[in-house]
Amino acid sequence: MAKKASTKTPKRANAQELGAQQREISVSEFFSKNRHLLGFDNPKRALLTTVKEAVDNSLDACEEAGIMPEISVEIQQVKGREDRFVVKVADNGPGIVKEQVGRIFGKLLYGSKFHRLKMNRGQQGIGISAAGMYGQLTTGKPVEIISKTSDDGPAEYMEVVLDTRLNEPKITKERQISWNGHAGTEVRIELEGHYQRGKWSPDEYLRQTAMANPHVSIYYRDPDGRELRCESATGMLPDDPKAIKPHPHGIELGILINMLHQTGSKKLKSFLQNDFCRVSERVALQICERAGIYENARPKRIARQEAESLLDAIKDTKLMNPPLDCIAPIGEEQILAGLRSNVEAEFCFAVTRKPSVYRGNPFLIEAGVAYGGKIPPDRSAKLMRFANRVPLLYQSGACVMTRSVQQMNWKLYKIDQPQGAMPVAPMLILLHVASPWVPFTSESKEAVASYPEVEKEITLALQEIGRKLRIFRNKQQRSKEESRKRKYIERYIPHIGQALQNILEFPDAERERLTEQLTRTLEKTRTG
Amino acid sequence: MAKKASTKTPKRANAQELGAQQREISVSEFFSKNRHLLGFDNPKRALLTTVKEAVDNSLDACEEAGIMPEISVEIQQVKGREDRFVVKVADNGPGIVKEQVGRIFGKLLYGSKFHRLKMNRGQQGIGISAAGMYGQLTTGKPVEIISKTSDDGPAEYMEVVLDTRLNEPKITKERQISWNGHAGTEVRIELEGHYQRGKWSPDEYLRQTAMANPHVSIYYRDPDGRELRCESATGMLPDDPKAIKPHPHGIELGILINMLHQTGSKKLKSFLQNDFCRVSERVALQICERAGIYENARPKRIARQEAESLLDAIKDTKLMNPPLDCIAPIGEEQILAGLRSNVEAEFCFAVTRKPSVYRGNPFLIEAGVAYGGKIPPDRSAKLMRFANRVPLLYQSGACVMTRSVQQMNWKLYKIDQPQGAMPVAPMLILLHVASPWVPFTSESKEAVASYPEVEKEITLALQEIGRKLRIFRNKQQRSKEESRKRKYIERYIPHIGQALQNILEFPDAERERLTEQLTRTLEKTRTG
Repeated sequence: MAKKASTKTPKRANAQELGAQQREISVSEFFSKNRHLLGFDNPKRALLTTVKEAVDNSLDACEEAGIMPEISVEIQQVKGREDRFVVKVADNGPGIVKEQVGRIFGKLLYGSKFHRLKMNRGQQGIGISAAGMYGQLTTGKPVEIISKTSDDGPAEYMEVVLDTRLNEPKITKERQISWNGHAGTEVRIELEGHYQRGKWSPDEYLRQTAMANPHVSIYYRDPDGRELRCESATGMLPDDPKAIKPHPHGIELGILINMLHQTGSKKLKSFLQNDFCRVSERVALQICERAGIYENARPKRIARQEAESLLDAIKDTKLMNPPLDCIAPIGEEQILAGLRSNVEAEFCFAVTRKPSVYRGNPFLIEAGVAYGGKIPPDRSAKLMRFANRVPLLYQSGACVMTRSVQQMNWKLYKIDQPQGAMPVAPMLILLHVASPWVPFTSESKEAVASYPEVEKEITLALQEIGRKLRIFRNKQQRSKEESRKRKYIERYIPHIGQALQNILEFPDAERERLTEQLTRTLEKTRTG
Repeated sequence: MAKKASTKTPKRANAQELGAQQREISVSEFFSKNRHLLGFDNPKRALLTTVKEAVDNSLDACEEAGIMPEISVEIQQVKGREDRFVVKVADNGPGIVKEQVGRIFGKLLYGSKFHRLKMNRGQQGIGISAAGMYGQLTTGKPVEIISKTSDDGPAEYMEVVLDTRLNEPKITKERQISWNGHAGTEVRIELEGHYQRGKWSPDEYLRQTAMANPHVSIYYRDPDGRELRCESATGMLPDDPKAIKPHPHGIELGILINMLHQTGSKKLKSFLQNDFCRVSERVALQICERAGIYENARPKRIARQEAESLLDAIKDTKLMNPPLDCIAPIGEEQILAGLRSNVEAEFCFAVTRKPSVYRGNPFLIEAGVAYGGKIPPDRSAKLMRFANRVPLLYQSGACVMTRSVQQMNWKLYKIDQPQGAMPVAPMLILLHVASPWVPFTSESKEAVASYPEVEKEITLALQEIGRKLRIFRNKQQRSKEESRKRKYIERYIPHIGQALQNILEFPDAERERLTEQLTRTLEKTRTG
């Protein structure tokens, strides 16, 4: 109904002038201006994020190549500049082929993990190149990479800068060098940062990484030269999670239409069988029939309208859940080992739930708890969050794991809890969300978004923990009771003996015999 | 130090195989998989976000062209599909030149506002194309655009789809049509959504938009056919904020190096003067001298090392704050008008702070409050958040405005407040952050990140409000006191009269005279 503008102020710009201002924005321009979205909003966090992205990449590469990861992390302060650090991360992985090095480290949104459904630490193709971009932005220095793809022969040394205007890598230096006795990759990034120990520190991140990845060996040297070594606690790699095809129930119309146009299959039936998981020939035929589309129709020919009824038909068809070997859990034993290595507790328990599905994506929840012992009491429980074995340190408040712990009623399990807050107890809780596609709340991947299905599974895991805790607490109380009684007896029986002696006037020997006997009988009645 | 891997499980993939999996990820692929980042994580929010992006664009266009905005918003439910809606937004703006239509609506990260420092509603070049992409993803339908760049002559009708794999627009239909009697743009998006009234509804968004933009006329027709009309409350447009050049103190090394390479200036001195704001010739020379670089050096020739000392020199140089005409505040009067139009309150107050600067970006805080009257008491105060005149409805918890209100000590101003929570009072608070670069916490632009400078300014604004509130509350209490006294007198004097009559036995007339006199005298003593 918008009618002719009644009032007009002196004309400012017309369509042509406005049109002339329109420009493309490269994704790297966007993220360098919005780098808080990537976890680089302050120097302290930037340092952590850089270490994190480099280590996650190394671990993914080693595991994909079937190599027991050995990671070396060094953070050095740049001389005379207390706000500048060099982060150096080296691994014993398969190395990176020369022609890929530039794009992997010097181009945002480039990687191997985005286009497949497989459980990995990385999934966006942003992390490490973003770290490089931040370093470049704050220090003007290129990223230095050493890559060696075979145990013998030379290694490639390269310096890469990212052209932010084009989001394209520029290799400014490259030469062959001799390096290590084995294949591997080393990345060196100089950046503006701030180093501080404790919560949110690289130290903490690496400690927790070792905890959730007991197969990994980590060597760490902090800016003060102090060293930390975590030797691999287990002789074997976790199973290699399989990449799966999308599950029909997770598909949206637009995606389906794209798939129809891009598929290699010549017939609708085979398209359904080949491009999705859990679609047998029988099911495929069922779907075609329901949709009222000829099973041999050429996928590319299917119009929007038909695609829509096809999707409706898919939604109405019962299907098996997606296969679950695309997820490799940490495992209850490993979680327990991790917890024990981390704190001296009286009671530890861990649970790995069965996989479940959200939006066609399989996911799996694991939980662990350590209670009592040397854990300080009368404090809020500590929560350690993990996604695909990666510790999440920031944005706890925005994370579904934190919310689930807070919203659970711990009083039911004899644990104190202020209304809707973290429980207050000598307790360390560990939560792990594993999935080929973890729904993070931002590119910095520090918090998991709360899909109802995910929240529900987490709560179920926490309840299992709660029940076990209650049983333990009960035992604990009984034995307290016992020892109280024992003390009681020990304290008073001698006096009784004395009193009897005074009344009956028998010798000391007699008194001692009596007290002993009394003690024994009472012990019996109590324990019996 | 990573040494040769001791254990190896059967080889899984080598560098070549891994390298072969590396692929570019288009920004549209990224965001369609991560669309919760853009505000499309559930059908209800998706509907709101779509309306929001379209309206914000219309308002920006009208104002840039100097036209009093008249916006028409219609949401229709698609027949037989209660989860599908058509959002139609039309304006009386300048229209869009034909060659730009495709990219503006069918390409992410394309726009006129990202590369300049000017206060706008949009700033990322994502919003409207993301809405189109979401519609396409959920319904397979293209975006329909009508654009007319002159009051007479035909209009262009186009249908645009976004090729997610390439992040490029495809124009699937185009023809000339006759439309309206004036220039303008209409966009039509069909999407999967959920409509619900109240908080977080398009209705609420439009109501608040009218409130913060009293110059705008809005016509709105909701899916149930109910109409809302907000006529422009003022005859004039807000000042057109100017675009400014970056302020030297907000620059980082990497940016500086890029600018040095891209500048048109031939000499360092002129580069500093022309490419930044607040750098006079004198200051430019100062900087060059401090940095120990020849003032006529060719910018392109300046090496990283020199750039670094140049930046240090800039940081050590005192500079005027950036010019502030790049911000157009709502203004205290308009805020008051808006509040009054929104609620019947006993007390309203508004404040527009002086502009301030974070990271070289100027910004300005405005705050308003409505108290008492018909606002329900004993509830948490309601907070309305605005950024560059756009209402923010979601992610309140993540926003610096919310936090500032919660962290302020309202008890100091005689307002109840549970520890660290929203104050509890019959109170409506309005906050507005205006800046050429608002630091949002995510691409969905629903929450402002908490930079210390911003938080401080917000708190100062809230304190001004608090002081005014305290004064009002005190007045209020005094007058309560008064009326209490009055009632008291009115209630008891007759009895006193009666009592005296009984004792002194005078006629009723005498009693009446007496009571009247008593009342009068007491009135005097009280008011006197």
